[in-house]
Parts: sequence; C-alpha cells; structure tokens
Amino acid sequence: MDNFEHRIPTKIIFGKGTENAVGAEVAKHAKRILLHFGGGSVRTTGLLDRVTASLKAAGVDWVELGGVKPNPRLSLVHEGVRLCKEHRLELVLAVGGGSVIDSSKAIAMGALIDNDVWDFYLGKGAPIAALPVATILTIPAAGSEMSTGTVITKEEGDLKRAVNSELIYPVFSILNPELCFTLPRFQIACGAMDIMAHLMERYFTNVKHVGFTDRLLEATMKTIIAEAPKVMANPKNYDAWAEFMWAGTIAHNNLLNTGRVGDWASHAIEHEISGIYDVAHGAGLAVVFPAWMRYTLRHDVERFVQWAVRVWNVELDVFDPEATARKGIERMEAFYKGLGLAVTLDGLGVAADRIEEMADKCTDGDTQQVGNFVMLGKSDVAAILRLAA
Amino acid sequence: MDNFEHRIPTKIIFGKGTENAVGAEVAKHAKRILLHFGGGSVRTTGLLDRVTASLKAAGVDWVELGGVKPNPRLSLVHEGVRLCKEHRLELVLAVGGGSVIDSSKAIAMGALIDNDVWDFYLGKGAPIAALPVATILTIPAAGSEMSTGTVITKEEGDLKRAVNSELIYPVFSILNPELCFTLPRFQIACGAMDIMAHLMERYFTNVKHVGFTDRLLEATMKTIIAEAPKVMANPKNYDAWAEFMWAGTIAHNNLLNTGRVGDWASHAIEHEISGIYDVAHGAGLAVVFPAWMRYTLRHDVERFVQWAVRVWNVELDVFDPEATARKGIERMEAFYKGLGLAVTLDGLGVAADRIEEMADKCTDGDTQQVGNFVMLGKSDVAAILRLAA
Repeated sequence: MDNFEHRIPTKIIFGKGTENAVGAEVAKHAKRILLHFGGGSVRTTGLLDRVTASLKAAGVDWVELGGVKPNPRLSLVHEGVRLCKEHRLELVLAVGGGSVIDSSKAIAMGALIDNDVWDFYLGKGAPIAALPVATILTIPAAGSEMSTGTVITKEEGDLKRAVNSELIYPVFSILNPELCFTLPRFQIACGAMDIMAHLMERYFTNVKHVGFTDRLLEATMKTIIAEAPKVMANPKNYDAWAEFMWAGTIAHNNLLNTGRVGDWASHAIEHEISGIYDVAHGAGLAVVFPAWMRYTLRHDVERFVQWAVRVWNVELDVFDPEATARKGIERMEAFYKGLGLAVTLDGLGVAADRIEEMADKCTDGDTQQVGNFVMLGKSDVAAILRLAA
Repeated sequence: MDNFEHRIPTKIIFGKGTENAVGAEVAKHAKRILLHFGGGSVRTTGLLDRVTASLKAAGVDWVELGGVKPNPRLSLVHEGVRLCKEHRLELVLAVGGGSVIDSSKAIAMGALIDNDVWDFYLGKGAPIAALPVATILTIPAAGSEMSTGTVITKEEGDLKRAVNSELIYPVFSILNPELCFTLPRFQIACGAMDIMAHLMERYFTNVKHVGFTDRLLEATMKTIIAEAPKVMANPKNYDAWAEFMWAGTIAHNNLLNTGRVGDWASHAIEHEISGIYDVAHGAGLAVVFPAWMRYTLRHDVERFVQWAVRVWNVELDVFDPEATARKGIERMEAFYKGLGLAVTLDGLGVAADRIEEMADKCTDGDTQQVGNFVMLGKSDVAAILRLAA
C-alpha cells in the first residue's frame, strides 16, 4: 500500500425530501448564489420550484444560469464566471448531474481569477482558491458530487480536459433517490457504466497489498451489478435507487483509491470519442473498457482473475487463469448489453475512420503516455480503438 | 435505507514515517498544545522523541500529560482539563491508542466549560464546543482516530460511559503501520476483536435495503479476518499492518453506518464487564458476542445466514438456515481462539457471581433497554451473560 493523505470535506444529506433543506444549508455559506442547471427536466419535474422556494425561505438571493449540456461547454462556463463577477455571487449551486456539477466547479474556480479558467484544464497552473460549490444531484453517474474532479469541453478543437483539486470538493451535496425516478433508461444505463468505470479504473493497479480497497471496490461493483437492473426495470424503485446512488458517490470520492494508483487510460481514450462524436460518456466507456481489458489482460492475469471470480462469480479454472479472466470480461459485456448499451464503436454508431486522429490527440501527438496499470502510447491507443471497432 | 447526514472532517495522513509530519500539521491549528499519552512504550520506542522534535521544529509549545491507562479514567481527564485551562492550551494531541484518544477527547470538551465534563457522559447536556483533537495512532482497535466517540471510566462506582459528538472528530490523525510493530500479541488480538465488534454492531440491523453497506461491512470484516493472523504471526509485517490499520479506522468512522441503525448492546454489556473487572475491552467483546448472537439469532435468521455465508464462507444449507447461521458463529469463535482470545467469562478469569449486578447497571436498574436489533432488558442481559459464562 502506498502512503496517502485522505480528507473529504463534503457533507452528504441523503434521503427522501432532502432537497427542501437546500436553502437552510446554503445560508450557512452564502447570501447570493449562482443557481446552475441543465435543460428543462428540473423545471418540468418541479424541482427547480422547490429549490427556489427553499432558497427564498432562507433569505438567499440567486441568479439563474441554465443550459448545461452533456459534455459541458467552456462557453457556458465563461458566462457563469461573468455572472459571478458581475453580481458578486458567493457560491455556485448545481442542480443536475455530473455535467452541471463539473460546469459549476469550473465557474467556481474561474470566478476568483482574472485569467481564463481553461488554463487550469490545459495544466497551466493550479487553482489556489474557488467559490464554494454545492449540489443537488439528479443523475447518479459522474460522482462529481463528492469528488475533486471537473471535466469540461472546449468547442473549438473538440478538446475535453479535466482538472482535479481539493478546492472543488462540494461543501455539501444533497442526494434524494426520488429525484432519479424520471431518468430516461438510456441515462440510467450510462450512469451505471460510468460508476463501474470509476471502480475499474481504480481496481486495475500495480500497487501491491491493497486487499482492503480491492474488497471495498468489489463490494461497490457488486452493488451496481445488483441494483442497476432493478432501477432499469422499475425507475420508481426507491430502495434500489438509494443503493445505486450512494454506491455511485462512494465509487468516486477517493476513499476507494487510498493507498493505490488508478489507471484512467480508458477515461482518457473515451474523452477523445465523446469529444469528437458527442456520445454520452457512459456509452463511450462501455465500448472502451472491454477493448482496454483484452489489450492489457496479460500484464497481470492474476488481478483479472480475482476480479472475474469475486465480482462476476466466474468459476476459477486453475489450469487456465486467462480463460477465467476472459470470462469475466464476457460477463461484463453481457451486463452492459443487458442495460441496452453497445460494446463496440460500430454499435455506438461511430465510424472507425478517425482512430488515428483520436489516438494522436489522446497522447498529445504521441508525446505523452496515458494510463498507469499499463502505460499506453499512440499505437497502443489506436490498437485498443481498433479492438473496440 | 434510512435518510442520513454524513461528513467526516478528519484528515488522515497514512504511511511510513508520517509521524514526522506532526509538527507542521499541528502548527496549522495551534501554537500551544497538550501532549497526551499512556505508559512507557511511547518513550522506549523513541516515538515521543520524534514527536517532540517535530513539534519543536514547527515552533509548537507543549505541556506533557502521560499515564493514560486502558479504560481511561476520569481523574486523569480532570488533570488534563486543569492543564489546558491553566496554560491556555489550544489543541490536544493524543499519541497512543483508543484510550489515549478518548481521554484526549474528554479533555478537549472539558477545557471549554466550567462544569464537570462527566455530565456529558451522564447524558446531562451535550457539548457545544471543544478544543481540536489530533492523534498519532499506535494501536489499531478503537477507531477513535476518525470517530465521534469517547468512552471514559469513572473510578467511583466503576462507571464506564460514552459520549458521541461531531465536535470531537480529530482534525487530523496520523497512521503509520510501523508504529504497530512493537505491540504485544494480546493487544493485537484485542484490537482485531474490537474492530470486528464495530463491524458486527453495525451489521446486525433491522433497517431493510442496506445491501451496499452490508457489502462494505463484509469487505472490512474479511480484511481483518485475513490480515489479523498475519500480523500475529509476524508483528513486523508492514503490508498486513497497513491493511489492518486502515480497515480498523474505516470500521468505525460512520461511513459503514450510513442509512442504517447499529445495535451496540454487546458494547454496552461489555462495558459492564470491563468496568468492574478491568479486563481489556476487546477481550470482553470476544466473550459477549457469541452469547449475544446465540440469544438473538432467531430474531432474523436470514441476516445471520448472509453473514455466515459471505463473511465466514459457510456453505449454505437451504434446508436448515439456522444451522448455517450457527456454523458462522462457530467459525467466528474459532477465529477468536486462533488469536488467543477466550470466548467465555470463565476463560477470561471472570467469575459468574456478579451477573445480576452487571445486568442491573447495564439497564439502569431495569429502567432502560439496550440494543436496537433486539432490545434487551435486564433479564435478557443476564441471560446473555449466563450464556457467556
């Protein structure tokens, strides 16, 4: 196990009706806020009305900024930064899923600097301050509600880049599983995939003696595997949503990463796919992971065997560990297909004609490697994308 | 799953050599501190010298208070409170195990009030402020390094009582598995038992749809079951200690309790045993748990079956679930015995002649019930103690 530091300052308020506590909770931090959200669903479900009623009752003023799209855009972040500066707003409240939260984190960092916040996403400097961010989560998937991460897409050049900073852990996140009842099936499936991806990125590590976090990761994967089909079958199943939602948050809040080093190549590769084709992040991950696994399998067959046996209940063939591992990958693919997800680029409707371009961008013109479990250059990324075709 | 709020402000600094960071970390919070510890081992191992060197280098002044014993005493707490007030100390640094940390938490609460801090332990009022507490953990067991709890014994009347407050989450805790290398075998075993107890108190709940936290609890139990024998066999096994130590902290920091209600009757019953006989808390728990389980088994056989199958790898006998559950209890007893712990009062050297007295105190003269999974009155507690005889 590696040395580590660990602290998660985010307060979680979990359960039925908890969004009505938002005003009182915000008032502990701010008097004037940016209320940031996505499309029409928060309006049509009445959630936005409940939120503003709660803010009003607590004496909190707000400026609204809607319109966040999946793969949140830098241009809207700039608009949010402008609003925060103009109105001297003190907190950014995200009402939505990972895209809204990531956009809010970008705004929170940008509001306190003169330069373009995009510089941080390009790795030019790191933030030293940010407005507090708070969230009301409506889509369990990205884990951004209790994480240090934000991913933003710059329209020009289709560039999708991430920032990680402890400054953007939300001060609080409200998780009410009832808010998931209206999610479309495809979005549920993509969320399940995103959560599984966060767990697998952490699971495949070269750090030895990480048995405890291995088991916590397996426990969380098993929860998603058990609960995702239940919420797909009945999106009003509160009990299944509660398990799914809390597991999705824990999957990405860094506890399960303590003492180990995650891989993250699959995320980097998928960012190139969704950056160009604007497919849902989860849908892209369902395509990348099986290919990434088949490409890296022989790097550490034992780790894949442990995963196949413990997570997917594959019977161990001690005489052929690799076959055991491959059965795990097959069961994972069957699970994704059962959720209605494609497991090939073709199934995703993405032509295989820009593979070289994606591999090139992913590795910055073959100058950088991606991944930690196996470090991948441009030719490796291209090979994985061809396996995924 | 129940609604819940969850926030753990404690920063964990984990790994080799991390105690040398203590001065710099304390300096973020305080200039003058109480340095609180137990017996001679922190001196003989050189740990105290390294700590004071680090404090000195960071410009932090300290007042020393050693002498904490297992089942920490109120009289020493009073002495610590006096020192904090007299020297206007700003933080209490615990260097030791759960007893030292619990004593530190009591001092931290007492330092800011005029009344006796014991009032809080009697349930008379709740703290509204406390000095910050920080810890360097030397015994993985109590979980106090990342918990809201403190347990203190008042000498007159052998009263052992607990306080829980979010105000006494340590601001930081330093966990270096190397510091465990010198622990006596018996103390290791008691620590393993204490950790298992924290997990089982949470596991046995009446709240439905807690599959995710069930699995996290099982993962943590399996880690202790796998790693405890390794550190018993070789107390210098860093890798095994790292897993054991981190699992011990997570076992009790309330994450694994989110959305569920723990039982805690076994802890309450054990407090009466160690309050009177001054046996080690872990040793007492090893005696109480098997008896408590046999007494409550039929309340929810399915839950015991899940635990037996998943945690202890008992083969499910679908035609006789109760036999499956009982095999789980037997394997648990075998595990304790393998660690060198007694599983009966007799084996512990405690005569069965004060059972009525203990049952009476535990239930406040049969006016209060203990436990949540099954609520126990005086006669139940006495019956469990007789089963444990």
